[in-house]
Amino acid sequence: MALRNPISQLTTRASPATISKLICLPSISSWKQNNAVQSRSFATPVPPVTQDATGSKGPTAMVFMNMGGPSKTDEVGDFLSRLFADGDLIPLGRLQNYLGPLISKRRTPKIMKQYAAIGGGSPIRKWSEYQAAEMCKLLDKLSPETAPHRPYVAFRYANPLTEEMYHKLLADGFGNGKGGRAVAFTQYPQYSCSTTGSSLNELWKWRQRLEGKSAGASDILSSANDGTIKWSVIDRWPVHPGLVDSIALNIEDQLATYPEDVKKDVVLLFSAHSLPMSVVNRAGDPYPAEVAATVYAVMQRLKFSNPYRLVWQSQVGPSAWLGAQTSHTVENYIAKGQKNLVLIPVAFTSDHIETLYELDEEVIGESGHKDTIKRSESLNGSPVFIQALADIAKAHLESGESCSSQMGLRCPGCKSERCAESKKFFAGQEIGRAGAA
Amino acid sequence: MALRNPISQLTTRASPATISKLICLPSISSWKQNNAVQSRSFATPVPPVTQDATGSKGPTAMVFMNMGGPSKTDEVGDFLSRLFADGDLIPLGRLQNYLGPLISKRRTPKIMKQYAAIGGGSPIRKWSEYQAAEMCKLLDKLSPETAPHRPYVAFRYANPLTEEMYHKLLADGFGNGKGGRAVAFTQYPQYSCSTTGSSLNELWKWRQRLEGKSAGASDILSSANDGTIKWSVIDRWPVHPGLVDSIALNIEDQLATYPEDVKKDVVLLFSAHSLPMSVVNRAGDPYPAEVAATVYAVMQRLKFSNPYRLVWQSQVGPSAWLGAQTSHTVENYIAKGQKNLVLIPVAFTSDHIETLYELDEEVIGESGHKDTIKRSESLNGSPVFIQALADIAKAHLESGESCSSQMGLRCPGCKSERCAESKKFFAGQEIGRAGAA
Repeated sequence: MALRNPISQLTTRASPATISKLICLPSISSWKQNNAVQSRSFATPVPPVTQDATGSKGPTAMVFMNMGGPSKTDEVGDFLSRLFADGDLIPLGRLQNYLGPLISKRRTPKIMKQYAAIGGGSPIRKWSEYQAAEMCKLLDKLSPETAPHRPYVAFRYANPLTEEMYHKLLADGFGNGKGGRAVAFTQYPQYSCSTTGSSLNELWKWRQRLEGKSAGASDILSSANDGTIKWSVIDRWPVHPGLVDSIALNIEDQLATYPEDVKKDVVLLFSAHSLPMSVVNRAGDPYPAEVAATVYAVMQRLKFSNPYRLVWQSQVGPSAWLGAQTSHTVENYIAKGQKNLVLIPVAFTSDHIETLYELDEEVIGESGHKDTIKRSESLNGSPVFIQALADIAKAHLESGESCSSQMGLRCPGCKSERCAESKKFFAGQEIGRAGAA
Repeated sequence: MALRNPISQLTTRASPATISKLICLPSISSWKQNNAVQSRSFATPVPPVTQDATGSKGPTAMVFMNMGGPSKTDEVGDFLSRLFADGDLIPLGRLQNYLGPLISKRRTPKIMKQYAAIGGGSPIRKWSEYQAAEMCKLLDKLSPETAPHRPYVAFRYANPLTEEMYHKLLADGFGNGKGGRAVAFTQYPQYSCSTTGSSLNELWKWRQRLEGKSAGASDILSSANDGTIKWSVIDRWPVHPGLVDSIALNIEDQLATYPEDVKKDVVLLFSAHSLPMSVVNRAGDPYPAEVAATVYAVMQRLKFSNPYRLVWQSQVGPSAWLGAQTSHTVENYIAKGQKNLVLIPVAFTSDHIETLYELDEEVIGESGHKDTIKRSESLNGSPVFIQALADIAKAHLESGESCSSQMGLRCPGCKSERCAESKKFFAGQEIGRAGAA
């Protein structure tokens, strides 16, 4: 599989501007200025620890949840069949079991070609495993009490699946009467029921199958001391200053490639995966508003240096989706004579088919203006981003919270019993605070 | 006309918590902490000035733009006919001149009853005139160089209309060969082409009629020294810390009315006027994302004390609008057993029919839970809000900018020539900086 950005080449790919910024780490001080609520101290020196040193509250499993993608083209069929079987992502109601396989089978050859075009598979597994491992190393230093932090990846539609991750957790000595602490850390910065919500429902399902005495609510209260894993959830982090900073740095790198006289008029197009309007309107999914919050925070960090718009990509099928669509927007701006555009992936943190194929090959590749329409890098191996992940995790471990108060609130129009039970389970976990006596 | 909150009773209506907060003015220091980019210094002592003292760059006309509302029930017909004639707000295409009058005539009796129910008219004129006058007093102290600041109100659909305001400006000694400076200050915190955009197009139209030598673009460049009014625009301020603080203070006042044991579980429902999906999807209107930015900033200010959702109100007609709808959301939460709700007006700053009738009488009044479903106050005469307006205006006068770089960017799908010309005019105005030598 050919990665666009092999991890080993990370430092050679970073621009001089980025490297100097990384060395000086201005991001950390600016996080604090810009965002007193969310910033955390990095400055406290801590004694060196290794992955083998165990703090008073360690070890801690750090489980990165994401949708995943096929690592090889022959995994595309399985990937799509899981994706279209997921009623949280693509609600087909009673027809799910019938229509899901039909649609996925029909789309498989086309999507296989797309994965072939980006090098034979999605890089999301490599990036996720790299990000999780690197974050855990930082976290061992930042939060020695909960060390060692063990990295796990759980994908919703590709290997390693949630089931595989859970079996690994049990084999590694978590649960099975031995208790232990695990953090489900969503890698979607903004919460949607169709992404993070779906991953949590899947995690809850496997937890009940592999650790629950019954699938009912009765075991929730007793789970504190019964030797099962204590779960907590990092369910959203849309404006964490490190996320914002890492996106902004990548935008600045792209802006630096334009001639000085046009630079300030380059239009920034933040592009997020769209949602069907049925999800937005009926259920009141929080995702569009949280994506908008990310975009506004990035523009504040950039001091509104350029005009911008938030647009939405990857719409499929005939029903109404949230827009304006990324591809239409690019076409419309070209028609208006505005050909200096930077596309910015804002809702996924690693490269995947929607950046490498849809944006790079289709939207940019077919625009006729590949020289002036560009894309900012995905966060992938960005050290600023990985530092941000560690900061978010540290704050969570210190908070003693099982999840955000926002996660406990169901969408107004939600009818899913699975969602209700899953939320009740995670919100009901009693978690001790790291740092508390 | 009976105002719900007569201005004279402002101090008696404010809760003790609000009053103590206002006296201590914690908001100002917290603005700086929370938002280094937008905060401005208030601490510099300035010599006292009066409305008659003229600074080196004064006088300055401060024009508050808003949609307006009928002050008496017999103005409802005219108000609605102007509203449905506005293609920026309600795009009916070629049928505008035919359908507009039909719809407005049909709706007039119903809307007259609604205005009768809230005391016979909209309080928006009184509030706007009060806010503008009070802000100008503060601004005279904060920006003596551009003093005196003269308050004007220009409504899009009710008296005083833009035309009336412009004639008043000319009569007061602005323009007509004498030049002078005017600031078009939108009172919609978040920019939409259907609100601020429409008001600016109307302002541009009357400027061309009353001051333009021609309606073409040729006079734009020569306008700097031809004795016409120099216009600049404050086109959006969705996360100004003073706006955020004033909304948050009103929410805290409502939360304080709930028993301590349920307080943290009260659901905050931020409610903004919706838009047709045709505007959202085809044109890429920036409004939904900016409203979401306001909501997120308020929640940061509240330290995410409560679960919340952003919902959308006032949908009319059969076409698709952005949701989830406020009324449906309230019904759905009641059905789920969640009856502690605070509705928060987040896109209008003064009371109007959508708060006083739609939220108070319909959504809350008909919910069957008037004791636990409440509404936070509109900003109206809030001193923290008026201080924020002065701070925004001062920063604008110091910036030397004619408008934001964001305003210059047309929506990707926009086909309006009026919009293109209006934006070109305002972005092309050359404005001197207050505070510059």
